Amino acid sequence: MVNFNDVLKARDRIKKYVSLTPLDLSIGLSSERTKVYLKLECQQKQKAFKVRGALSKISSLTDEEKQRGVTAVSSGNHGAGVSFAAHLLGVKNAKVFVPETAPKAKVEKIKYYGAEVVQVGKNYDETHRIAVEDMEKNNMIYIDSCSDVQLIAGQGTVGLEIMEQNPEVDIILVPIGGGGLITGVSIAAKHMKTGVKVVGVQTAACPAMVKSLEDNVLYEEFPSEDSICDALIGGVTEIPFKMASKCIDDIIVVSEESIKNATRVLLTEEKVVSEPSGAVGVAALLENPQYFEGKNVAIVVTGGNLDKELMQKIILE
Amino acid sequence: MVNFNDVLKARDRIKKYVSLTPLDLSIGLSSERTKVYLKLECQQKQKAFKVRGALSKISSLTDEEKQRGVTAVSSGNHGAGVSFAAHLLGVKNAKVFVPETAPKAKVEKIKYYGAEVVQVGKNYDETHRIAVEDMEKNNMIYIDSCSDVQLIAGQGTVGLEIMEQNPEVDIILVPIGGGGLITGVSIAAKHMKTGVKVVGVQTAACPAMVKSLEDNVLYEEFPSEDSICDALIGGVTEIPFKMASKCIDDIIVVSEESIKNATRVLLTEEKVVSEPSGAVGVAALLENPQYFEGKNVAIVVTGGNLDKELMQKIILE
Repeated sequence: MVNFNDVLKARDRIKKYVSLTPLDLSIGLSSERTKVYLKLECQQKQKAFKVRGALSKISSLTDEEKQRGVTAVSSGNHGAGVSFAAHLLGVKNAKVFVPETAPKAKVEKIKYYGAEVVQVGKNYDETHRIAVEDMEKNNMIYIDSCSDVQLIAGQGTVGLEIMEQNPEVDIILVPIGGGGLITGVSIAAKHMKTGVKVVGVQTAACPAMVKSLEDNVLYEEFPSEDSICDALIGGVTEIPFKMASKCIDDIIVVSEESIKNATRVLLTEEKVVSEPSGAVGVAALLENPQYFEGKNVAIVVTGGNLDKELMQKIILE
Repeated sequence: MVNFNDVLKARDRIKKYVSLTPLDLSIGLSSERTKVYLKLECQQKQKAFKVRGALSKISSLTDEEKQRGVTAVSSGNHGAGVSFAAHLLGVKNAKVFVPETAPKAKVEKIKYYGAEVVQVGKNYDETHRIAVEDMEKNNMIYIDSCSDVQLIAGQGTVGLEIMEQNPEVDIILVPIGGGGLITGVSIAAKHMKTGVKVVGVQTAACPAMVKSLEDNVLYEEFPSEDSICDALIGGVTEIPFKMASKCIDDIIVVSEESIKNATRVLLTEEKVVSEPSGAVGVAALLENPQYFEGKNVAIVVTGGNLDKELMQKIILE
């Protein structure tokens, strides 16, 4: 469905717009036998890996499709990424639908690069339904946040970079929300190094992929407990689910408490601002040191948009 | 004394070891007419620009000189940079002298890449005197932290990158401690764009370069009031002082309170961990918005090693 060549082509299209983010050795998280490297996508443009997928998808469109315009649904990093990518790639008509409850700061961020923000719907599902109607009426192109070949190929460039930056990596830890990132990373990394292990991480508040794979059912909606990981909440998506047996070697589930601790460790010890959703890989490492013993571990820190109040709370505890 | 060609050659020698750090538009710090870009050297290897100079200097040594080994005096980013550079460039004998009072965490960081740490002397001056004696006795090469042609050429690669990343930049704000960084940045930037303005920033606790230029006296030692900017405390050095009339267009002095505030803005709004010494450029911008009106401003954020206790204090105020 998505292959290594798609990732290579995506990289050619997006490389001049994205940062080659560091894969930095963490002295603090490493031990004598285990070397830990942080892939700092929280230092990517717009402070999240999501720009890669948005740029990959939009740059794959024909001129006619670009003229028709693009639509996305997201008040988070995907929405900001689509606005940014549309701006850079000359797509004049970009609409991002966000729920009525989306915070002003997030809406402003999306607007900054020129996308029209449509604030409608009581929750994500209602917003999504209205967006799809609008898009069909206006004959626009939908930029899915997860289950799309070109988007996944774009996220896969993270895996490409990791294996180029350090071919010695044995295990890659990747947060799972809808599953787009881990799918792309795995396709790239496993092509470049047979035997590299790609391990997903989910919050215990919403282990949707774990349950989907256990039950062999695509749970596109999934109930969530209270969580500080906005980006990891909700169901899984089609392509990642279908490719999971090839792409996901294992999934580690971590507690919300442990995610909070990992966010604090990143901030105060590693001097890295990470969203809780971006810190789950570090939580998995800290909870299960024996799992990684003797390995070279790369942890994808996916986003840096840590809310100010949450930052204060986390640093005080 | 140092010229553009030195910077180009330094870049060739060091580029495979350093990160091309982002020059990111800051939406929050920009206004309608003023665009502000952050040059994030706080996301450089070892979290500070200092690795550039150390790599440049050590890579310029002959094999015979490398065999003799290198010595530096610094418990901060320069010390860590020299240890890191010596490790990467195969220099087996590297000694870093630090005062007796140097905190354990800093000593551990320097030791990590293999340098021998010699903890001696009640203060910097005493440590420095002992280091020079030891170096002469053992016929080693001294890696100055500021006043050295190859070191300054290495720091200058920051200026090279800024002007390549955004040729529209009109003003570059650079913190001044000993003066090595601003000298290198200015040599590169002014060669690439006539008329670009390079403005230094000092803390009011220790405006050594301001006074040196006013009095036309090289103050190699200078009294400091209490300061959170460890890296900007002390006197200026010879080459930067001698080249100042060519390299430094202006110097803005900012208060310690304002530096604290800038560090907080970077952390909570920009999601960037910066040391206070690295945040002085942002302080200068926030204190003097009219100075920058209508310009494209690049601010060098020099280092990210923000102490944990200070981070907590800053975020709470």
